[in-house]
Amino acid sequence: MDFAEDPRTIELAATLRAFLDEHVIPAEPVLDAQLRATPDEWGFRPVVDELRALARDRGLWNLFLPGEHGANLTNLQYAPLAELTGWSPRLAPVALNCAAPDTGNMEVLADFGTEEQKKRWLEPLLDARIRSAFCMTEPDVASSDATNVATSIRRDGDHYVISGRKWWSTGAMNPNAEILIVMGKTDPAADRHRQQSMILVPRDAVGVEIVRPLTVFGYDDRDHGGHAQIVFHDVRVPASNLIGAEGDGFAIAQARLGPGRIHHCMRALGMAERAVALVRERANDRVAFGSPLASQGVVREWAAESRISIESLRLLVLKTAWLMDTVGNRAAMTEIQAIKIAVPRAVQTILDRAMQLFGGAGLSQDVPLAEMFAGARALRIADGPDEVHLAALGKAELRR
Amino acid sequence: MDFAEDPRTIELAATLRAFLDEHVIPAEPVLDAQLRATPDEWGFRPVVDELRALARDRGLWNLFLPGEHGANLTNLQYAPLAELTGWSPRLAPVALNCAAPDTGNMEVLADFGTEEQKKRWLEPLLDARIRSAFCMTEPDVASSDATNVATSIRRDGDHYVISGRKWWSTGAMNPNAEILIVMGKTDPAADRHRQQSMILVPRDAVGVEIVRPLTVFGYDDRDHGGHAQIVFHDVRVPASNLIGAEGDGFAIAQARLGPGRIHHCMRALGMAERAVALVRERANDRVAFGSPLASQGVVREWAAESRISIESLRLLVLKTAWLMDTVGNRAAMTEIQAIKIAVPRAVQTILDRAMQLFGGAGLSQDVPLAEMFAGARALRIADGPDEVHLAALGKAELRR
Amino acid sequence: MDFAEDPRTIELAATLRAFLDEHVIPAEPVLDAQLRATPDEWGFRPVVDELRALARDRGLWNLFLPGEHGANLTNLQYAPLAELTGWSPRLAPVALNCAAPDTGNMEVLADFGTEEQKKRWLEPLLDARIRSAFCMTEPDVASSDATNVATSIRRDGDHYVISGRKWWSTGAMNPNAEILIVMGKTDPAADRHRQQSMILVPRDAVGVEIVRPLTVFGYDDRDHGGHAQIVFHDVRVPASNLIGAEGDGFAIAQARLGPGRIHHCMRALGMAERAVALVRERANDRVAFGSPLASQGVVREWAAESRISIESLRLLVLKTAWLMDTVGNRAAMTEIQAIKIAVPRAVQTILDRAMQLFGGAGLSQDVPLAEMFAGARALRIADGPDEVHLAALGKAELRR
Amino acid sequence: MDFAEDPRTIELAATLRAFLDEHVIPAEPVLDAQLRATPDEWGFRPVVDELRALARDRGLWNLFLPGEHGANLTNLQYAPLAELTGWSPRLAPVALNCAAPDTGNMEVLADFGTEEQKKRWLEPLLDARIRSAFCMTEPDVASSDATNVATSIRRDGDHYVISGRKWWSTGAMNPNAEILIVMGKTDPAADRHRQQSMILVPRDAVGVEIVRPLTVFGYDDRDHGGHAQIVFHDVRVPASNLIGAEGDGFAIAQARLGPGRIHHCMRALGMAERAVALVRERANDRVAFGSPLASQGVVREWAAESRISIESLRLLVLKTAWLMDTVGNRAAMTEIQAIKIAVPRAVQTILDRAMQLFGGAGLSQDVPLAEMFAGARALRIADGPDEVHLAALGKAELRR
Repeated sequence: MDFAEDPRTIELAATLRAFLDEHVIPAEPVLDAQLRATPDEWGFRPVVDELRALARDRGLWNLFLPGEHGANLTNLQYAPLAELTGWSPRLAPVALNCAAPDTGNMEVLADFGTEEQKKRWLEPLLDARIRSAFCMTEPDVASSDATNVATSIRRDGDHYVISGRKWWSTGAMNPNAEILIVMGKTDPAADRHRQQSMILVPRDAVGVEIVRPLTVFGYDDRDHGGHAQIVFHDVRVPASNLIGAEGDGFAIAQARLGPGRIHHCMRALGMAERAVALVRERANDRVAFGSPLASQGVVREWAAESRISIESLRLLVLKTAWLMDTVGNRAAMTEIQAIKIAVPRAVQTILDRAMQLFGGAGLSQDVPLAEMFAGARALRIADGPDEVHLAALGKAELRR
Repeated sequence: MDFAEDPRTIELAATLRAFLDEHVIPAEPVLDAQLRATPDEWGFRPVVDELRALARDRGLWNLFLPGEHGANLTNLQYAPLAELTGWSPRLAPVALNCAAPDTGNMEVLADFGTEEQKKRWLEPLLDARIRSAFCMTEPDVASSDATNVATSIRRDGDHYVISGRKWWSTGAMNPNAEILIVMGKTDPAADRHRQQSMILVPRDAVGVEIVRPLTVFGYDDRDHGGHAQIVFHDVRVPASNLIGAEGDGFAIAQARLGPGRIHHCMRALGMAERAVALVRERANDRVAFGSPLASQGVVREWAAESRISIESLRLLVLKTAWLMDTVGNRAAMTEIQAIKIAVPRAVQTILDRAMQLFGGAGLSQDVPLAEMFAGARALRIADGPDEVHLAALGKAELRR
Repeated sequence: MDFAEDPRTIELAATLRAFLDEHVIPAEPVLDAQLRATPDEWGFRPVVDELRALARDRGLWNLFLPGEHGANLTNLQYAPLAELTGWSPRLAPVALNCAAPDTGNMEVLADFGTEEQKKRWLEPLLDARIRSAFCMTEPDVASSDATNVATSIRRDGDHYVISGRKWWSTGAMNPNAEILIVMGKTDPAADRHRQQSMILVPRDAVGVEIVRPLTVFGYDDRDHGGHAQIVFHDVRVPASNLIGAEGDGFAIAQARLGPGRIHHCMRALGMAERAVALVRERANDRVAFGSPLASQGVVREWAAESRISIESLRLLVLKTAWLMDTVGNRAAMTEIQAIKIAVPRAVQTILDRAMQLFGGAGLSQDVPLAEMFAGARALRIADGPDEVHLAALGKAELRR
Repeated sequence: MDFAEDPRTIELAATLRAFLDEHVIPAEPVLDAQLRATPDEWGFRPVVDELRALARDRGLWNLFLPGEHGANLTNLQYAPLAELTGWSPRLAPVALNCAAPDTGNMEVLADFGTEEQKKRWLEPLLDARIRSAFCMTEPDVASSDATNVATSIRRDGDHYVISGRKWWSTGAMNPNAEILIVMGKTDPAADRHRQQSMILVPRDAVGVEIVRPLTVFGYDDRDHGGHAQIVFHDVRVPASNLIGAEGDGFAIAQARLGPGRIHHCMRALGMAERAVALVRERANDRVAFGSPLASQGVVREWAAESRISIESLRLLVLKTAWLMDTVGNRAAMTEIQAIKIAVPRAVQTILDRAMQLFGGAGLSQDVPLAEMFAGARALRIADGPDEVHLAALGKAELRR
């Protein structure tokens, strides 16, 4: 057993850390100003393109993607880099072309796409010329149970016809989100986990109706394309748009989720570290009742508890990444579930305490805590609520 | 000891409950539509005026205010009514003219105002012709320590000159908020709690700069006037605008806070009851993994825990109200601190669980949970963060 | 609504408080010495008889029992007195003849016993000449589900024959525990809640085998008779020993539990108050890192949290008592469940914090905290574990 | 980074696991019977000697001790073995001669002892011919602040004279505990951390009074020698009994604590794993309300939460061990504090849930949970209460 990071990770992390300090964090108020100036838009603002150019120059590009198309990092190597991008969740992931849901969509295309699909959609995505959305969750059913998916994907000659309603399609308000990956049922009579398929649907296909944006708490996340509710009115696409074979949908979704959870968890830990860093400054600068907050018992206790949470959970995420690299996603299922449950709620608690220390400012647009809180809170629901994972993990734990 | 409510409370509660069911809850989507239609405004929307007329007809008006000017209810009688208004926090309090900060401001004017001040500002407030704001918190200091207040109120002949920066002035973005009650220092050399004074400043006085709105978890609360940051640039008002005498500011603030906390806590419990009611519907209607959520162990546990919290804390708030009515605010200090700490955080937990049960919808604009969560979360900071109250309560508890 | 105590409660509480201060608390080390001197005995030690004589003189006797046989107090009046006895849980309840399980057994006899049963067992119990035990829980089944009871009570001519195994029969190691109330099944084929009956079994009946004492953590509670495991080997008693009719067992058990839970919860709150009082002394006397513990933030936070828990939960117990007095045990079921869940765990937390503050002493025989902790912990299991009550309460809460 | 265990650890763990299953766990009821048969003794019972012989045969001896005298394992290698001994805390550590406080005392002698001291006391300890005690905590002061130590060690010619009171000297009731390591002050005027020294005091020296045993939640731990209160009445020992130089006491204590905390934490995790294993059996075997406990939501949630805690905290302990091995105890201070705080309380929670699932049996002598709980609870106080470590950790975290 060895807890030391390998040289390539150490080097990339140093480069990324410098990039964050010099370019990304300082760009946050620039993004705010650009957002205020363009309140009706849903695409990336100019500052994102500038950061992307800088990131590419530094080799900080597509780090999330293993294999030939990407940076060829293991999950274990990418994890600490993903954590660093969590320090600036609105800017760093997109600047490095490592932002969900594009990351997961690119993985799907790289692993399951045909050559034609890769050429048409993976290449521009890898190049950040377009963005994409993932249409899985539905408004009318408990999506934590995948068999509830009601959208239909029906074969009709050389085409498939998609009908149904989706929501929480992140990024889909962005006019640049040219391609949607849609989960639906091709065969409701098949085995429970062979009913679903995934298909590529251009956002401008006839019958795709972007209904409205959803908010998370009061945030519409219009800086990157928000979260859309979409109706598919008998949308017709070529049969070649199917990803994999009919019935592969559930398996592809599972394959997509493993790395996605590692990424989410590591970014969340990065948010927690940012919060601790903000608290450190505030607690030393702010005086109440005659002494700096940093000298008060409850504030110290919070800082200690945050450190303990972060250290123990980071190790669990890293071990999960290592297991995925060495024995595969399936064998790492317990650990993947464990981090999916444990990390977002711990980060939520850390952010909650940090907001409390910041008082009113902590809830406002002046510090990134409240927006990060909304993001961490959403992670407890995204990809299945904690409770579904707790039940599954507990069931496995009690099996003898 | 007797836990039965008195007849007047029972009757008013029944009237109010019917009013909520028939008019207020159904008006919520109307308000949403009016807000979408007028994205750049900060005043009350037409639906509020309609509800106010209906409430007045039913005798549901100024219930918060004891004495001749108001409905002459005790704190104990008003508490269950305040709770009911928490079911629809954006509409019910304003519909009944029982919304903060106007309630506290009217109390201050009723208790400490001169006849002239009452005529000029209390009367239109009682009549809901204008609204008001309260300017206490400052951006640059830890406002939990009242001696940190930096705004100055300087006597100059027949006038006072106000200079300083305030924020979290709720309602002050509303052009109809004609009057601001401003806390500042008239004598920095006086005893710790005699340095501050309160003064009435018309919003349109020369030198009042409304700088910007603040958001709470992304919500700008523009339905009622938001939360403003304000700079007072040597604002000159007649000396007769002072409330009470120089040095009375701290005492007036304390007097204002007691009932305010009762109201906040009871409304928060009403939010919790609304959440439980929403959960009840959802848990019965929604099926996952073959059975309604309502039949699942964790959901039942949540419902039970929420009920236990609500029942025990409601009794503590009611006892606090009773103590304020019978032995006075000062003697009820321990209990006032206790509810200030315990209720908002319990309600936050209840709302957090409810959001979890609702999945994505729970975080969105489609159900009121996330916005209520933001409101409950803010209460843990407003009027001093929990930790200041915990420290004071603990210090008193350990005194022998 | 009125939170003031009535004059009789106030007067009795004052008498009891003085009795505690002057006699009971000072008798605790006397009991310890008597226990060390008689390590092999299981009966009451002499100090108990002395306290009982003093309590009777002061009219502090059988306060728990409503009606002609007892002190004729309502549940609401008795509750604060029960709380006071919790300050010294080993001595005060027995000194006042208000200790479980005798209290519940006397209630059963008073409410459901025949005149003969009352004469033979209720009278000496009321007079504290004998003690009793209650044999319900069984070692081999999940007793939280009453239909699991496996002990049989079989009619045989003028007798009943009892066969089965029981444990956690509190007090039954005491040779003075002359009578056992045994729950068993008379008709396994009857409706779910009409299968059980209760019967009186003299401890010295042929076939009653007291197998061994059980410990709670490391305490054997030999000061009052411990907790016995018992086997009933075809024990034959007269048919007139049946309490009520065949099939009444479940209903009698339910009737017995309501007041029992009020008593347990109030005593537990008394333990919490004792802990707070101990902490107050310690925190002021003990200096670490240059200042008394009482001035340290975390200690203050603990004290505040303990106060908040106690105040809110006490009100809930009192309201429950009031409901039982005014609308009956059945209508108060939600509240009874709520306090059964909420109070013991809150007291456990308060005691845990107090032990922490006391360091090693807190875990030892030198302060009563660890033993109280064991008692509070056991309450979370006695009469059904919290989780059964949470599930039932949640189910009721979600019913629409 | 690599999470795979090395071959030697894997092999030793397999041997130890087999030894536990075949010999140690089956010996637990044997120990209970031997304890019941010898209620007045404080030494090891015969079963311990039998297990020791078996352990030596298998090479499972003195594994805790690095270097020539011990098994030459790193902290990282020993940690998983220490965890396994936690499955049977009363027997496994003593069977392997890896039980506190002997382990720490042997480390002190190995690292700081003279050749003569090693020959006289380390050799028989390594051979388990004698046992030892560590006398640090004092009854009258807050021992969490080491400068509070009041025992004096005064030079008098060729001797030192020790005067003072100690308690929680674990093992010292055992007549076989021939040697005591005593912490006291040689120079109260020296620098804060140079006032203390450590000295070897034979238990049978004139003036050593073993006052009484202390209990932990009712347990006297007489199977291995309990926890003694001791008075040193001007006890005179040769000057050569001093360990290291005058003033070295604090540094030696610190050196002793690092590995001790790793061991304690890993054993505590072993207790947690034993609890999970017990729960697994019980939850599958026990039926309530028509289905096995293992199928109930709350039980699954508990199992999942326990697994998450164990996995994340084990990694943190292992990383701490690795840091101690690679950069030293001092550089690992943050992590040592973190595990000292986080592990015992998490294990306490896991044991508390397990007891709840076991109902009454869980609190009794029939399953090891309650006794393990007492042990885990004590760890939150031993070597300084959590709060002292939280404050120190938080202070370091907030330093900028």
